[in-house]
Amino acid sequence: AQTTRIAVTPGDGIGPEVVAEAVRCLETLRAKHNLALEWTRFPWPSHAWHEEYGESWPADALAQLKAYDAILLGALGDPGPMDDTNRYLLPDSISLAPLLDMRKGFDQWVCERPARLLPGARQYLKDDRAKDIDMLVIRENSEGEYVSQGGRLRQGKPDEVATQMEVFTRRATERIIRYGFEQARKRAGERVQEGRTRAFRTLDGRSCESQVCLVTKRNALRYWGDMYTEVFEEVSHDFPDVATHHELVDAACMKFVQCPWAFDVVVASNLQGDILTDLAAVLSGGMGVAPSCNLNPTDPHMPSMFEPTHGSAPDIAGQGIADPTAMLFTTARMLDWLGRKDPKLAQAGKELFDAVAADLAEQGNQQRATSQIGDAICKRLQA
Amino acid sequence: AQTTRIAVTPGDGIGPEVVAEAVRCLETLRAKHNLALEWTRFPWPSHAWHEEYGESWPADALAQLKAYDAILLGALGDPGPMDDTNRYLLPDSISLAPLLDMRKGFDQWVCERPARLLPGARQYLKDDRAKDIDMLVIRENSEGEYVSQGGRLRQGKPDEVATQMEVFTRRATERIIRYGFEQARKRAGERVQEGRTRAFRTLDGRSCESQVCLVTKRNALRYWGDMYTEVFEEVSHDFPDVATHHELVDAACMKFVQCPWAFDVVVASNLQGDILTDLAAVLSGGMGVAPSCNLNPTDPHMPSMFEPTHGSAPDIAGQGIADPTAMLFTTARMLDWLGRKDPKLAQAGKELFDAVAADLAEQGNQQRATSQIGDAICKRLQA
Ligand SMILES: CC(C)[C@H](C(=O)O)[C@@H](O)C(=O)O
Ligand SMILES: CC(C)[C@H](C(=O)O)[C@@H](O)C(=O)O
Repeated sequence: AQTTRIAVTPGDGIGPEVVAEAVRCLETLRAKHNLALEWTRFPWPSHAWHEEYGESWPADALAQLKAYDAILLGALGDPGPMDDTNRYLLPDSISLAPLLDMRKGFDQWVCERPARLLPGARQYLKDDRAKDIDMLVIRENSEGEYVSQGGRLRQGKPDEVATQMEVFTRRATERIIRYGFEQARKRAGERVQEGRTRAFRTLDGRSCESQVCLVTKRNALRYWGDMYTEVFEEVSHDFPDVATHHELVDAACMKFVQCPWAFDVVVASNLQGDILTDLAAVLSGGMGVAPSCNLNPTDPHMPSMFEPTHGSAPDIAGQGIADPTAMLFTTARMLDWLGRKDPKLAQAGKELFDAVAADLAEQGNQQRATSQIGDAICKRLQA
Repeated sequence: AQTTRIAVTPGDGIGPEVVAEAVRCLETLRAKHNLALEWTRFPWPSHAWHEEYGESWPADALAQLKAYDAILLGALGDPGPMDDTNRYLLPDSISLAPLLDMRKGFDQWVCERPARLLPGARQYLKDDRAKDIDMLVIRENSEGEYVSQGGRLRQGKPDEVATQMEVFTRRATERIIRYGFEQARKRAGERVQEGRTRAFRTLDGRSCESQVCLVTKRNALRYWGDMYTEVFEEVSHDFPDVATHHELVDAACMKFVQCPWAFDVVVASNLQGDILTDLAAVLSGGMGVAPSCNLNPTDPHMPSMFEPTHGSAPDIAGQGIADPTAMLFTTARMLDWLGRKDPKLAQAGKELFDAVAADLAEQGNQQRATSQIGDAICKRLQA
């Protein structure tokens, strides 16, 4: 196979620490399976780069990254210290901008966040609620509430008006909904292959083997709510094997807590997906385990980007105690994705997932050093 | 005192059933304390009215309701049966419109939803998370994402574009944030009065006696996010006794589950508040206990509206098994509000709250008939 090339961007805070373990696992897997895999490390985007050059990354950053098959990102968002007026030197809007720039620049129109409560993961819900949590939340990642259109009229004056425009296209709606149905079908197939059977109880009380739940707020945000609803109905005809459901976003959040087992694949808009994925992450054990995949499934010349959902956690950075589990699950997801071109990578991804899951099951979420967790997982990979 | 007049609108589904218990409690309290309290029942807004007259309520509905001091609403949103093309006869957008019309027509610019996990309420979170849940979520209720501006260009065509505008004014931002701070101060005062001390642990690790947490998504929805942030900072100077915090909405949802005890008063936009209040409701026992108050604190000629957060639950309607607890907590909240003009009503509201809370503590959420719960609470009120 042609060599697969990864751009590794460790970022800020605990980013470099957890990325170091990901790289060790990649090295271990490469040696073991003789994988055609290479990676290059970038010092940006980062707070340090910003301090030196006045911008989070170089002007040609996207052009440089485009040469790679995937981007593996640690964490962004270290705001730096506060200045004299109690403002952070680097507000979120600047330090996190590269995330949004990559999603846009590479048209990573899917954000996929699996949420499965694995043995050993931290459990927040009571036992009767925390059972059978295994959902995939798919977030529209290219438009909607995130188009950054709007402004502030009479800024700072008592009669100021701030506007923010939401823009949704049928084309992007259709592709994300179709992607959701395809994933539901794929997940059902994988369950059969793995000999796991699973009957989802739909939210309206039926039983089904796979399901897509569309989330909107169509009773208040009518225009795109109606368009989403219509497209969902149309696309569903191509997937008679997949059951469908529709929830309003407020009710969906409630039901994530009340009956998470009822959800299989969930499709939502950019902002509503942002909210639902954080909630789903916490249901599956919290930020310590949650991967996030920003995918462009249509253009093979555009790299997809993989990051743990957690942030840079400046408060614990530099102490060697950050949990690399989410980063390693993210890395496994990346390998699986890259397996579309090189099946050996998908196999390596599965091995990595299994090793991380086994470590989690054995050790739970007890406090261990970052490198100790990396050691344990590398040892499993070598075994 | 002048007679206080309430418009009672039972609505659809279980609405009339739970409202019947509320009215019995009001009768009991009126007789006991000789309250200057009257109410009038309206057959609209409702599904039945819509069927007969082709609209959810008469054209002069708002004008009629304006004559009252408050509106006590049961539940709306019975979609009716499906038609031949699998569409509901009365979609949410029609059946629920009166809710939004009342909020707008009476400028009920605050939506206040207390979430306190009382003994006996259903608990979804594990014990180590479900402790000390006692927050008040305050939702901006007059603008923002709910202005209904936007449309569908090339509707139904492949190149359709749907837009939805969010509009925020500094004036409405200032009043809702100020209201939040006032409530934080009031709650702290009440705790002192009741001899309950409470140290909130702020999300950034300090301890404080009262707190307002502002929620936005300023890193993605910048324009109003920045305006909210600036106004929050300005208003906070008038409340040096109240600690402040800021969360992004995705993180806020996560922390509602991870550390709900860290929240005191939460202020959020219309849509984000909608989401957070449903989540807060479930943390405090679910829809069965959650009240919702749509308030106009500034114009005494505009009635405020009180409704349980739950819907019309058509699946269990007519069986006499709906739990009236949320409705009764809502009624207690209404009396408390009306107590601003007639202190005897506030006292009656407190009695009702205590009776409902005592019933909940004793009986938990076991299945009982609607009227049985009403009986038990009326008996407590008479005692
Ligand atoms: C950092 C922020 C802009 C981002 C988002 O809102 O998409 C983050 O919350 C995420 O979910 O990846
Ligand atoms: C019915 C709906 C329009 C309403 C809202 O979104 O405000 C409801 O969810 C609520 O929270 O009162």
